[in-house]
Amino acid sequence: MIVGFDVGGTNARGLLIEPSTGEILDRDRVSSAGEGPILLTKLVTMVKDLGERNGVGAEAVGLGVAGLAHRSGVIHYSPNLPDLVEYPLGTELSAELGVPVSVINDATAGAWAEAKFGAGRGSENFAFVALGTGIGTGFVVDGRLILGANGFAGESGHIQVRADGPAHHTGQRGPWEYYASGSALGRMGREAAADGRFAAGIELAGSVDDIVGFTVADAVAAGDDDALAILDAFGREVALGAAGLVMIFDPERIVVGGGLTDIGEPLRAAVDRWLRELILGADHRPPVEVVMARLGDHAGALGAGLLALEGDT
Amino acid sequence: MIVGFDVGGTNARGLLIEPSTGEILDRDRVSSAGEGPILLTKLVTMVKDLGERNGVGAEAVGLGVAGLAHRSGVIHYSPNLPDLVEYPLGTELSAELGVPVSVINDATAGAWAEAKFGAGRGSENFAFVALGTGIGTGFVVDGRLILGANGFAGESGHIQVRADGPAHHTGQRGPWEYYASGSALGRMGREAAADGRFAAGIELAGSVDDIVGFTVADAVAAGDDDALAILDAFGREVALGAAGLVMIFDPERIVVGGGLTDIGEPLRAAVDRWLRELILGADHRPPVEVVMARLGDHAGALGAGLLALEGDT
Repeated sequence: MIVGFDVGGTNARGLLIEPSTGEILDRDRVSSAGEGPILLTKLVTMVKDLGERNGVGAEAVGLGVAGLAHRSGVIHYSPNLPDLVEYPLGTELSAELGVPVSVINDATAGAWAEAKFGAGRGSENFAFVALGTGIGTGFVVDGRLILGANGFAGESGHIQVRADGPAHHTGQRGPWEYYASGSALGRMGREAAADGRFAAGIELAGSVDDIVGFTVADAVAAGDDDALAILDAFGREVALGAAGLVMIFDPERIVVGGGLTDIGEPLRAAVDRWLRELILGADHRPPVEVVMARLGDHAGALGAGLLALEGDT
Repeated sequence: MIVGFDVGGTNARGLLIEPSTGEILDRDRVSSAGEGPILLTKLVTMVKDLGERNGVGAEAVGLGVAGLAHRSGVIHYSPNLPDLVEYPLGTELSAELGVPVSVINDATAGAWAEAKFGAGRGSENFAFVALGTGIGTGFVVDGRLILGANGFAGESGHIQVRADGPAHHTGQRGPWEYYASGSALGRMGREAAADGRFAAGIELAGSVDDIVGFTVADAVAAGDDDALAILDAFGREVALGAAGLVMIFDPERIVVGGGLTDIGEPLRAAVDRWLRELILGADHRPPVEVVMARLGDHAGALGAGLLALEGDT
């Protein structure tokens, strides 16, 4: 068995996983608040508890985290986990548990989980694009996960698509995630509502200011035409960055995941349509397949656990 | 021995190469005009001539071409070689010569040559950025060349960095190569000259309209301050796209090649300086090294020959 953690700003969620099938046998969660040594103790306890409850031992432990996780197991930068930066969580956890531990960017890990047990199966070359608060990405090329020299690969949300555009909270101007994250979908919903083009959003959320990405998602699910128009414009922004990734990697498939996955087919269709428009030379290439991710918010923890077992990082 | 070709719109240049050292033993060139079967005959003759002149045989033949070269050896799209599109040049040449033949994008092939015998040596993770009429790129990740599902990887010149920007001849708006190719450097020189900020350019070229990228390069070499200011602004545009590649791939090195390589240190320094500004989270990452390519315009032919011998494509 393996244990995979998704360590977010609020909680650390742990999964006990059968690595040959990806089956999740048990799960647990704990607050992720506190300095490194405090979290270390909590994670050690959770690994032991998950094992004892199920009468198994953990052969490897993986942590998926938002931000820059170095191949060495040290988090170099994470806006959600400031207390963990520069703390050698991977090494310490490995020493405590006596098993291999990997610390990996959550979208990178998610790409690997989708490759093994999700929407990446059957493809040796695909890009995983997770739309959440920001945009996380992971790449499988010739069947291998791209980690980069340090382990920092896949920070594609920060590529500038409108280099003279508005300032993002990162300090950059016009990065992809400014236009195509779940946060961006919320902003597009608020802008449409303020402009009289999204009455259903105001009704659902209570006010213009309370509209978020999920409000647009809910209105799409209810068949609201205004919401579909917002989603189409949003799909163009997702496709704009994805087209760049196609130019760079030449994948055969784009797997769309993250918090917006539940929108499903309307989102997939919008991205697909715009991707065909925006890929240069689309007439000379086989079409790139756009599919939705299948593993939901387990992908990061599952992928991190699998990678720890494989010892690739 | 191997033979590598650089097949451009005007000429096909052939190199006879010792693959263990990258040494170029002999070279030849022929017009690349004409339909596929005509070029086929010319290339067969050149391979045989190079072998006979040097008393050796070719074990493998590689062709570097601008555009989309499929892994199967068929060129899907090439603005410079319209007569070759869909012609199975690789298969036909392999059948005629009885040796493996690879047909590969020239920048992708150039990256591999730099990896083996040039400025990529000692690095398992680097990006090759060739600045010419457009921008070509190639990527080495964990010591492997990225080809993509079809062989079309590395078309990074077409990523849109100002998606609402001016229309490029490709039909896209604001792609990276619009701002950061050798053609762009020429345009920046003309704009500066028209604006009274590049007198040396007018003197060198004869008129504003005759200023090209090499004019700026020559004025930089002569120490002209106006030209250095243009080069600095140009370096920022190169770094803008390169920063995106760093976000995506996390390379440890950027190798700058192509027709502008002769500018040397002033270009390298400008890209280096701006890259530090434009990489998000640069404080949390080891610096990315910027170096100039070493193999000049042999890189594509050399890399294509090496890849044909390795049988990787």
